[in-house]
Amino acid sequence: MAKKKAEKKDGSQKDAITHLGELIHGIKVAMMTTVESDGSLRSRPMWTHDRDFDGELWFFTREHSAKVGEVEHDHHVNLSYAEPGKDHFVSVSGRCRLVLDKEKARELWNPSLKAWFPDGLEDPELALLCVKVEKAEYWDTADSRMVQLIGF
Amino acid sequence: MAKKKAEKKDGSQKDAITHLGELIHGIKVAMMTTVESDGSLRSRPMWTHDRDFDGELWFFTREHSAKVGEVEHDHHVNLSYAEPGKDHFVSVSGRCRLVLDKEKARELWNPSLKAWFPDGLEDPELALLCVKVEKAEYWDTADSRMVQLIGF
Ligand SMILES: Cc1cc2nc3c(=O)[nH]c(=O)nc-3n(C[C@H](O)[C@H](O)[C@H](O)COP(=O)(O)O)c2cc1C
Repeated sequence: MAKKKAEKKDGSQKDAITHLGELIHGIKVAMMTTVESDGSLRSRPMWTHDRDFDGELWFFTREHSAKVGEVEHDHHVNLSYAEPGKDHFVSVSGRCRLVLDKEKARELWNPSLKAWFPDGLEDPELALLCVKVEKAEYWDTADSRMVQLIGF
Repeated sequence: MAKKKAEKKDGSQKDAITHLGELIHGIKVAMMTTVESDGSLRSRPMWTHDRDFDGELWFFTREHSAKVGEVEHDHHVNLSYAEPGKDHFVSVSGRCRLVLDKEKARELWNPSLKAWFPDGLEDPELALLCVKVEKAEYWDTADSRMVQLIGF
């Protein structure tokens, strides 16, 4: 598999970021991996908020949940997006922080989140996680390459 | 979403382990997350060797590759298996070690691996990664539950 590094925001880097955003929004559900206090790595499916990709990815969470404790202890997370049937795979490395901001929650809220948050915006446990992307790679057999994006 | 803990190998635990094996082998490609020396988390797609699931998962790798350096520095890995179309998601937490064993490689070799290792068993870089599973969880909307399995 050819490997392509694009470290500057030149034309191909911009294309790669656009394509990364398309892959992420095409798959939508990330497996978010966090570090537990004993060093174990856990992941769980998380619905990615749909908006133009600008180097941050947003998720809804319960404020008091295992993953929030984990990211408060160690901010590093990995988001993997996989669609094996299409041979699409994305790895996003970043840092995650808890955001308690009802205004922002209102802006990002999407009714399809009702499955996990039946009380919607009224839920006092409703909170946000924001992942600042530091590095991303994708595998996309259509053009069979792996791209590293460094320095958003 | 109902959550079920099964910490002993009773009947339902055995069923859950069998089902976990079925989910993993149905999806096959894991995103393997490792810890870089600066604490960042990276993941990449890895083809899971297909055999009865007994608490270990095996992968082929190049001996000199970033992920091998990462697991030698920190053994913890997460394997996530995701098939968003079917709403199947699996998180496996475990420890990973490099295994240099030509005999074992011969036993596990599968011609479909030629895509990544064109020289096959003759490739001097061919090596194995063995993940000892410590904890696993799966989300399987067929019965809309999340199951945690601890202590293989
Ligand atoms: C398809 C899918 C999407 C999910 N999306 C979210 C989500 O956006 N936010 C969330 O908190 N939990 C979501 N969940 C539930 C989580 O995967 C997880 O079970 C829950 O958040 C508790 O995780 P924790 O104990 O690791 O904190 C989703 C589950 C599935 C199956």
